[in-house]
Amino acid sequence: MRDFTDNLRPSQPGDQILAQERAQSNLPVDDLAQHLLGYNGFLERQARVLPIVQQQSLFDKSHQQNLSRPDAFKQGLARAKLLRRLAIKHGWDLADFRIAEYLVDDVSPYFLHLEMFATTVREQGSPEQQAYWLPKIENWEIVGAYGQTELGHGSNVRGLELEARWDPQAKQFILHSPYLTASKWWNGTLGRIANHSIVVAQLMLPRPGSSGPEYVSHGPHPFIVQVRDMKTHQPLDGVVIGDIGPKYGYATMDNAYMLFDQFRIPHSALLSRYSSVDAQTGQYTKPEQPALVYGSLTAVRANIVQHARLVLARAVTVAVRYTTVRRQFRDRDGDPNGPELAVLDYPTVQIRILPLLATAFALHYTGRAMQDTYETTRREIEAGNFNNLANMHSMSSGLKSLCTTLVADGIETCRRALGGHGFGGGSGLIQLNNDYLSKPTVEGDNWMITQQTASYVIKKMTAAVKAPNSRYNDEVDGQFKEFIRNKQQGKTDYQLDILNNDQDILKSFQVRATALAYNAYRERVENKKSWNSLLVQLHKLSRAQSQSILVSKFFLTLSNEKNIPALAKETLLNLFRLFALYTMETESYEFFSCGAASQGQLDQLSNKIRDLMAQIRPHAVNLVDSWKIPDYLLDSALGRYDGRVYEDLFNRAHRLNPLNRETFNPNYWEDEVVKGVTDARLASSKL
Amino acid sequence: MRDFTDNLRPSQPGDQILAQERAQSNLPVDDLAQHLLGYNGFLERQARVLPIVQQQSLFDKSHQQNLSRPDAFKQGLARAKLLRRLAIKHGWDLADFRIAEYLVDDVSPYFLHLEMFATTVREQGSPEQQAYWLPKIENWEIVGAYGQTELGHGSNVRGLELEARWDPQAKQFILHSPYLTASKWWNGTLGRIANHSIVVAQLMLPRPGSSGPEYVSHGPHPFIVQVRDMKTHQPLDGVVIGDIGPKYGYATMDNAYMLFDQFRIPHSALLSRYSSVDAQTGQYTKPEQPALVYGSLTAVRANIVQHARLVLARAVTVAVRYTTVRRQFRDRDGDPNGPELAVLDYPTVQIRILPLLATAFALHYTGRAMQDTYETTRREIEAGNFNNLANMHSMSSGLKSLCTTLVADGIETCRRALGGHGFGGGSGLIQLNNDYLSKPTVEGDNWMITQQTASYVIKKMTAAVKAPNSRYNDEVDGQFKEFIRNKQQGKTDYQLDILNNDQDILKSFQVRATALAYNAYRERVENKKSWNSLLVQLHKLSRAQSQSILVSKFFLTLSNEKNIPALAKETLLNLFRLFALYTMETESYEFFSCGAASQGQLDQLSNKIRDLMAQIRPHAVNLVDSWKIPDYLLDSALGRYDGRVYEDLFNRAHRLNPLNRETFNPNYWEDEVVKGVTDARLASSKL
Repeated sequence: MRDFTDNLRPSQPGDQILAQERAQSNLPVDDLAQHLLGYNGFLERQARVLPIVQQQSLFDKSHQQNLSRPDAFKQGLARAKLLRRLAIKHGWDLADFRIAEYLVDDVSPYFLHLEMFATTVREQGSPEQQAYWLPKIENWEIVGAYGQTELGHGSNVRGLELEARWDPQAKQFILHSPYLTASKWWNGTLGRIANHSIVVAQLMLPRPGSSGPEYVSHGPHPFIVQVRDMKTHQPLDGVVIGDIGPKYGYATMDNAYMLFDQFRIPHSALLSRYSSVDAQTGQYTKPEQPALVYGSLTAVRANIVQHARLVLARAVTVAVRYTTVRRQFRDRDGDPNGPELAVLDYPTVQIRILPLLATAFALHYTGRAMQDTYETTRREIEAGNFNNLANMHSMSSGLKSLCTTLVADGIETCRRALGGHGFGGGSGLIQLNNDYLSKPTVEGDNWMITQQTASYVIKKMTAAVKAPNSRYNDEVDGQFKEFIRNKQQGKTDYQLDILNNDQDILKSFQVRATALAYNAYRERVENKKSWNSLLVQLHKLSRAQSQSILVSKFFLTLSNEKNIPALAKETLLNLFRLFALYTMETESYEFFSCGAASQGQLDQLSNKIRDLMAQIRPHAVNLVDSWKIPDYLLDSALGRYDGRVYEDLFNRAHRLNPLNRETFNPNYWEDEVVKGVTDARLASSKL
Repeated sequence: MRDFTDNLRPSQPGDQILAQERAQSNLPVDDLAQHLLGYNGFLERQARVLPIVQQQSLFDKSHQQNLSRPDAFKQGLARAKLLRRLAIKHGWDLADFRIAEYLVDDVSPYFLHLEMFATTVREQGSPEQQAYWLPKIENWEIVGAYGQTELGHGSNVRGLELEARWDPQAKQFILHSPYLTASKWWNGTLGRIANHSIVVAQLMLPRPGSSGPEYVSHGPHPFIVQVRDMKTHQPLDGVVIGDIGPKYGYATMDNAYMLFDQFRIPHSALLSRYSSVDAQTGQYTKPEQPALVYGSLTAVRANIVQHARLVLARAVTVAVRYTTVRRQFRDRDGDPNGPELAVLDYPTVQIRILPLLATAFALHYTGRAMQDTYETTRREIEAGNFNNLANMHSMSSGLKSLCTTLVADGIETCRRALGGHGFGGGSGLIQLNNDYLSKPTVEGDNWMITQQTASYVIKKMTAAVKAPNSRYNDEVDGQFKEFIRNKQQGKTDYQLDILNNDQDILKSFQVRATALAYNAYRERVENKKSWNSLLVQLHKLSRAQSQSILVSKFFLTLSNEKNIPALAKETLLNLFRLFALYTMETESYEFFSCGAASQGQLDQLSNKIRDLMAQIRPHAVNLVDSWKIPDYLLDSALGRYDGRVYEDLFNRAHRLNPLNRETFNPNYWEDEVVKGVTDARLASSKL
């Protein structure tokens, strides 16, 4: 349908604006992109996979915001099937496949099959179990899920209520949900799709020596269970399963509820690599090294930390490009007939977006470091060395909490900085936000798991206090012991120059984290305060430790890594400074009160931050370009690479919006809603 | 469909838990409710309107989370029609009608008709225009909207691009959109429903003395324009209108785009109470008192401030009730076989929810004060006294910014405190959040409008500096002059006891706000810094001023008002202290660096806050009960009055979720998605 709007253009062409922005910065985008995303061929893979994905009409995103939740789920399943077929057709490896999923940007309804289901069988299954199940899993002959969390218990796994009772006569386990709260809940892939599942249940064995109905729980154990008929796909008798309904995001995932009524499963269902029940005697064998369960949880948390940077980079890409194109108001102190300013030139917009741009880089370097730590420690563990397990677990817990909070809050900060258009579907941030808001809760609630970091840190501090002059075990241990010796010598002011010395910035974060660790140690160990009364303090301690890691990894990578493009170096250092000082400013009192920064310098932080932002501003567009996020993934009128913001917004509204294909009846005295259409659901009945 | 789950109960019954909670607090819920919501018969109206609304099947909320955006819009229109008919049938006045809308909780697609359309005609129309239009508007014979914001301009109204060119020959205005960015955008009620609209356009008149095509803009002016045919409801020739598409929230509102192509409207279309164009001579008459436009904007902002408290109270009601019912983990230092603790007993949960509970009360008292100020000042203005106009405008700007930020962030903080179930549809917070997130942007972006407050405050400070010993004009003026005199006498430490003296808490907020005002004055007036370079500082200044208002109004109401139930007094005072000290802690460095609080006391803030929370905790359920938010409005499994959280969650999932009515095909090698259903849209084409 042609009309007069076809000939209209924006008064200020966004494509020219962005072209000028790109031209006036000497930042080498492609080199920087290679530095950031060269690892494991990410950029090459993305370039290869993108056109294959984009040409499939099923992956077209232009209508998906108008789908109901059931239709979104159906589309998600159809897409997920197609992705698997494309992988086979094009011979994609797992990394290629992950990139295809990343570009399509649905949460895959098969996600748990590929992840927790397969991983659990691999890690917890006996050799026989692995031999039996893994081929079926890897060929997707069966589809599996992971059923742990329940309606009444999530964080507290030991509190799970589903029971698996051993019947010595029948040599079977009996799965049974004694309460409604024993229902499995939230288990992805299980609600509508899976025909099998890992089911975590309290292992109940007859009390030794008792002949009656006395049972003892040996704690939660994983079972592999068929839950639906392979032909009809109906739940088996004695099993009730379904999808829990609409959520904040995750429309394409069928999070489940599942209950059992005296449901019998064979002896072979208990995954028995580490713990087992003897089928003949009913004798229970405990796992030798219970800490091994840390492993897969840490892997998931490390992944979340690694994943965070590209999510935030996406939001920041939209924010930087749009606020560069967008003009509003002339300079109040300038020429009254001068041009309107780019919104990104206002410090009140910079202060929201540019620290987040810096945060994306901070997350990147720490994500990489977390992965390295994970891989190294994992190798040590395979070789029987458990020394660094607790450290890795502590690091992954604190970082998961801090990083996902930064990103979840950061997406919304970017969205608000977009002004009115940030509330519209053209922002490209709605689904991103709705899906990402699961992250502060899943795999360990962000406020709860900081206890794990704090607990580890307090242990380290306790050891350091006992022997402050002994040899250092590691870097943090060294910081702790130095701090204690300083304290013994009455040194409390560290005389750090945070405004002009990058090393002193690092030191300042270390001093503050160490001081909080010492305070927590004193309260818990010396003053014997109850753990729960200290929880808020412990949360702050974990945050301080994790921030110190982010700041250190950022700076040390810039100092030590070889492949940093020379022309980008100073800008990256400015991003480091901005991230560190902005973080410091939000918690300046903590830095001040423990002597990590002086009042004189803290009073100047705002101005220093403003100056850093002014230095970064000319490179902002090139900086976000170097994350190489394709328009197809962004799906954002505001964040388009070419800057044609207004043309795209108008196209979405005028040409793509299905609501404009119907004519409405505005008269309140008539039941008719859409002209010429009778819809019984919309009639008012009882008037 | 009956199955074994019908007989299951939660392991810990939420109804008993909440009943016990209510019994152990002596807080008089009904008296407190009357104190909070007695004004203008709110409680009585709610009790009367609720059953009428609830019995209409069209207002049933149990399926709406599953609707596509087009279907949500259709349902919203049908409901809005029904509400209007119910109002006529039951003789509801406007306050009753508003409560019915509040309970149904859709953003009404007629909202702009009732608000900005009617108000603008009433305030800006000449007596003849009012006589002609108002009867049609009040009877809803026509449906109108308000078209101001454009695709390219929102905040900067003077930058609007739509032109209204006066044609002296034809005695008509010609509406024309010269650019795509001149398209009206965001205008609610207009996209699909309205047949009329206020259209704000640059009034272009021939340059006096010129005979050619030279035109001069006299700035944006409001016109009343018919835009759709009254029979066919199609846009008139030369007009393109539509709905802009899916958004973050506001699914039931048809936010519009609208462009004009040389569209002629009569001379009478220009609303001409204050400014006009003589039809014969083309002579322009300016408004005498341009500041009058402040009036309606301030009214809208004051309304937003007033409205904020019940939104936050709703989120907090859900959070308090659910975290009381929810149990997780035993006390780490307690009996290893003891019961699991209520989640609300953990300080890390309290620190997120209880300060927000306190904030709801703070918002309440300030909202009332803002309304009073508005009404008083409005009466003064009608009597020709403009003295307090600027103050009212400043107050409404700063408070709109602060209060909507507190509430928008607060909803999400509550949601995250709900753990996993907070991500589910049973939270009742999804639509609330999605809709409310418009508020930090609409009616003046929260970061932009703080300039208006800062500008006013700097003017006041400039006057105070000039004559610090002169008589006080008002309370703030007194604080400023006292501060300057103290400064002159070298007094910088105020020796305030914020931990034990409520008056000193007030004083501390005043000193800090005044010190920031003085710093801003010095930078801008004495050091002549550019306005834009100070924007972040000005934002902080506005926040400090507004926080000081919130704290003062809270305390002064508790000190002065008569109808506060005696048994609630101490708890309300604790809420005041919690709100104030929690606010202070988040910005402690600012308080410290300007002498508003001492390091010794600031170091104790965390413990003081923890103690206050412990005192408030036993009354938390009764406190949220006193906001009297009906279950129908909450629509929350987690926040139900009776505490039957798990039963409701399960019911929504197992019995109400439409996705469970279809059986899916999980085999990736088959195109079929729903078993037995062929759906061409879901087939993959190009493989």
